[in-house]
Amino acid sequence: MARRPRRARTGTKAPAAAPATPYIKRRLPFFDALDEEQLIKLESQVDWMFENIGFAFRDDPEATRIWQEAGVKMVGDKVFADAQWVRAQCAKAPSEFTQLARNPERSVVIGGDNQVFAPIYGAPFVRDLEGGRRYATFDDFEKLVKLTHMHPNLHHSGLVIAEPTDIPVSKRHLDMVYAHMTLNDKPHLGAITEKSRAQDSVDMAEILHGKETMDNNVVIMANVNTNSPLLIDRVVTEAIQVYSSRGQAMVVTPFILTGAMGPVSTAAAVAQAMAEAMICCAFAQLVRPGAPFVMGNFLSSMSLKSGAPTFGMPEPVLSNYLIGQLARRVNLPLRCGGSLTASKVEDGQAAYESADSMHSTMLAGSHFTLHAAGWLEGGLATGFEKLVMDADRLGSYQKILGGLDMSEDQFARDAFEEVEPGGHFLGSAHTMRHYQNAFYDAQLSDSENVESWEEKGSQDMRQRAFHKWNAMLDAYEQPAMDPGTKEALDAYVAKRKAELPDAWY
Amino acid sequence: MARRPRRARTGTKAPAAAPATPYIKRRLPFFDALDEEQLIKLESQVDWMFENIGFAFRDDPEATRIWQEAGVKMVGDKVFADAQWVRAQCAKAPSEFTQLARNPERSVVIGGDNQVFAPIYGAPFVRDLEGGRRYATFDDFEKLVKLTHMHPNLHHSGLVIAEPTDIPVSKRHLDMVYAHMTLNDKPHLGAITEKSRAQDSVDMAEILHGKETMDNNVVIMANVNTNSPLLIDRVVTEAIQVYSSRGQAMVVTPFILTGAMGPVSTAAAVAQAMAEAMICCAFAQLVRPGAPFVMGNFLSSMSLKSGAPTFGMPEPVLSNYLIGQLARRVNLPLRCGGSLTASKVEDGQAAYESADSMHSTMLAGSHFTLHAAGWLEGGLATGFEKLVMDADRLGSYQKILGGLDMSEDQFARDAFEEVEPGGHFLGSAHTMRHYQNAFYDAQLSDSENVESWEEKGSQDMRQRAFHKWNAMLDAYEQPAMDPGTKEALDAYVAKRKAELPDAWY
Repeated sequence: MARRPRRARTGTKAPAAAPATPYIKRRLPFFDALDEEQLIKLESQVDWMFENIGFAFRDDPEATRIWQEAGVKMVGDKVFADAQWVRAQCAKAPSEFTQLARNPERSVVIGGDNQVFAPIYGAPFVRDLEGGRRYATFDDFEKLVKLTHMHPNLHHSGLVIAEPTDIPVSKRHLDMVYAHMTLNDKPHLGAITEKSRAQDSVDMAEILHGKETMDNNVVIMANVNTNSPLLIDRVVTEAIQVYSSRGQAMVVTPFILTGAMGPVSTAAAVAQAMAEAMICCAFAQLVRPGAPFVMGNFLSSMSLKSGAPTFGMPEPVLSNYLIGQLARRVNLPLRCGGSLTASKVEDGQAAYESADSMHSTMLAGSHFTLHAAGWLEGGLATGFEKLVMDADRLGSYQKILGGLDMSEDQFARDAFEEVEPGGHFLGSAHTMRHYQNAFYDAQLSDSENVESWEEKGSQDMRQRAFHKWNAMLDAYEQPAMDPGTKEALDAYVAKRKAELPDAWY
Repeated sequence: MARRPRRARTGTKAPAAAPATPYIKRRLPFFDALDEEQLIKLESQVDWMFENIGFAFRDDPEATRIWQEAGVKMVGDKVFADAQWVRAQCAKAPSEFTQLARNPERSVVIGGDNQVFAPIYGAPFVRDLEGGRRYATFDDFEKLVKLTHMHPNLHHSGLVIAEPTDIPVSKRHLDMVYAHMTLNDKPHLGAITEKSRAQDSVDMAEILHGKETMDNNVVIMANVNTNSPLLIDRVVTEAIQVYSSRGQAMVVTPFILTGAMGPVSTAAAVAQAMAEAMICCAFAQLVRPGAPFVMGNFLSSMSLKSGAPTFGMPEPVLSNYLIGQLARRVNLPLRCGGSLTASKVEDGQAAYESADSMHSTMLAGSHFTLHAAGWLEGGLATGFEKLVMDADRLGSYQKILGGLDMSEDQFARDAFEEVEPGGHFLGSAHTMRHYQNAFYDAQLSDSENVESWEEKGSQDMRQRAFHKWNAMLDAYEQPAMDPGTKEALDAYVAKRKAELPDAWY
């Protein structure tokens, strides 16, 4: 179980040095919350689940055929797999891989010492300071895609930054993928809700990147949730078949509110999350050995008063630390955490919960972090202000992950010789040499004194964030695109829209 | 430089097990951000400062005499000490000690694997939702002392939770210490602003605890800041002489806004903070070998736009991790961090910054955390709402620090055998056995759905906090006190007030 570097068959080499990567090259150590004995206990539980509890693969005859062909024991729809075999399967997936963006300067490396932040995924509602809370429309969606394109602290644009509820469900994926491809030049995800929608995403990616590039690289990735506990339905297995067979990347995420979709105890729920993700990785490796795979996990707690999901609480914070360490032991890229909260608005609760959730996500070494910005109300609403508020803090995490600069001049020996006891360093030569890059410049934090702050209208962070995202949209410029590629995408979307019925569920 | 357990001469033994300590028994590992080579580099810089830069001890002839008597080299008022000698002096201080509270159930252990949270210290202003921002009065102060007495997540009551600005500076310390002793039964700090005020605090502690108890235990502690950079004035050395000579505990805190009171680079500023605290510890050990000493540090960054101090930013977050690791290497208790922010109000900024600051403080292993709750506006204002908002989150950190429960039943094997794929654990026997203690119950987080939340008036966290602290004050009951002790304290305060002039500066 030692850590083995495995380069993706489909991956390009990560940059050697890392001054200006469009993602985070982590230099800070990981936080290891468990000792060897504890890790072995948790891993034994994972292995026990493979062999004794089993995982149901339901409603997809092709998935059943794949398991049977591999000679894995099934009882009814339940797969009972030898634990060593599952681990050997997982070892076939690369420990890191590159997802190419259409703008090559924005390609990201997922896995290893790299961390990639992406916005919220899947909210049916949006909220902003002027418009309040409402069902999200495609107009909202396009604005959110533009903001994600522009924000320097978001490295990946995800997919469903909000659900465009004014477009039929049957066609929504085409407009969403098209918007990400044309309004944005960062890497993004494809659809998973139905097999043909996954295929549409892959086909559009082939148009955007070209067949040869796609044959040899990851150009699109998809995220799908298991039906925890212990159930992997056809949405998952079909998405894996579409994306993995094409050498594209899959994130499979057990969604576990402990006490409901998993046991109420952290140790058991973390082991369950590992086991569900690993059995899906094993399946993906049957579909195509070496297919890039990200171990997802989404663990949170609940309110004892109401059964409502809670976020940013100590149990999921601890879970992030544990799952980070466990994922490093299987040497697979990890998705976990995010800036999560149960708050309805961008208040103290939202920020405390998001910060604790994201701080632990950051230290835990989550390689791909969905929901890193914009999440409100347990994921039911995307906040426009929340998106830029969270993203402003992501810049701070980026700096922390850079670790300590210990080059000689950072020790400032000349400054200590220059400055007298009780004096100050403001004018010292050392300060002059370094002040421009010394501190992270948080755009949405106001550090002025109370008088200056009152003069400017006593704005809280939310009001400043409202101005910020509006100013960003005013300054938005659509990234250039080859006209032939755009025409081909247009034609593909038009053809598929003509073929598909309008369905609203 | 290996870690040596050193029990305080004056300390009582920490409880063996830790089910219900009135402070945190940490079970989570510390976060070590630096490797051995980096640590040695930083420690070499600390040692270089002792021997080559020197620290000015100014305006206290008695301090000069103590240094000279110890045979330490002085050039003018600057002490140049052999690094190994400083380290040997620091090794005389206990690695952990108990501070007795007047209620023995609330005594705290400072150092080792223990963590103690205390409220904000030193703000001249208060802010609350109804009364707005205003100069703090003694009425505010008493309310804050009561709230600190009541809040289960604050283990220590500090001292200047806000400055009672309606009482003369010359007498303020008497009223503050008296309020902590009579309205509150948690451990607290004594005054340091002037030698006689320190002595009054020590004398009152002797009345409260009795001479014999005080001879053999720490019953009061004080916190004082150096005049960074490189200057230790008589306020510091006199406080050390008063408290340390009586076997009571001192926290000495370099207050460094990097770029002003220290170099703009984190590595240099962290080494400076260590060196300033260690030279003061060496001095305290000259005053009384074995005197309990807490290495303070208060490192933050500044805005490049205005030079205003900033808090919760990546540089001080990283500093917390570094200083935690360095302090463990000298095996001394540490004070660092807190719930710090530059925000004027209890908005998202305040909460993000406070959470990042406090999360890193918690993981770094700060043994005594002043400013753990209530801080606004760079420490200029104590927020009533902020106090209970922060303190609510401290309960989450307390749970995280408890680490992972790995007792057998936490693995829930019976639940996995009971629940079907796609089923739920809500009614499982395992959930029934554990749900009552499974999750931290955050009092001020609202996790209800948006409809319920709107029905209750769409209150944000700040509004809920306003109701919370008012309800707490309504329920406040003064802790019982021996009438003879109270009379003696009353008499002491009356006598000293009669002796002292009214001075307002």
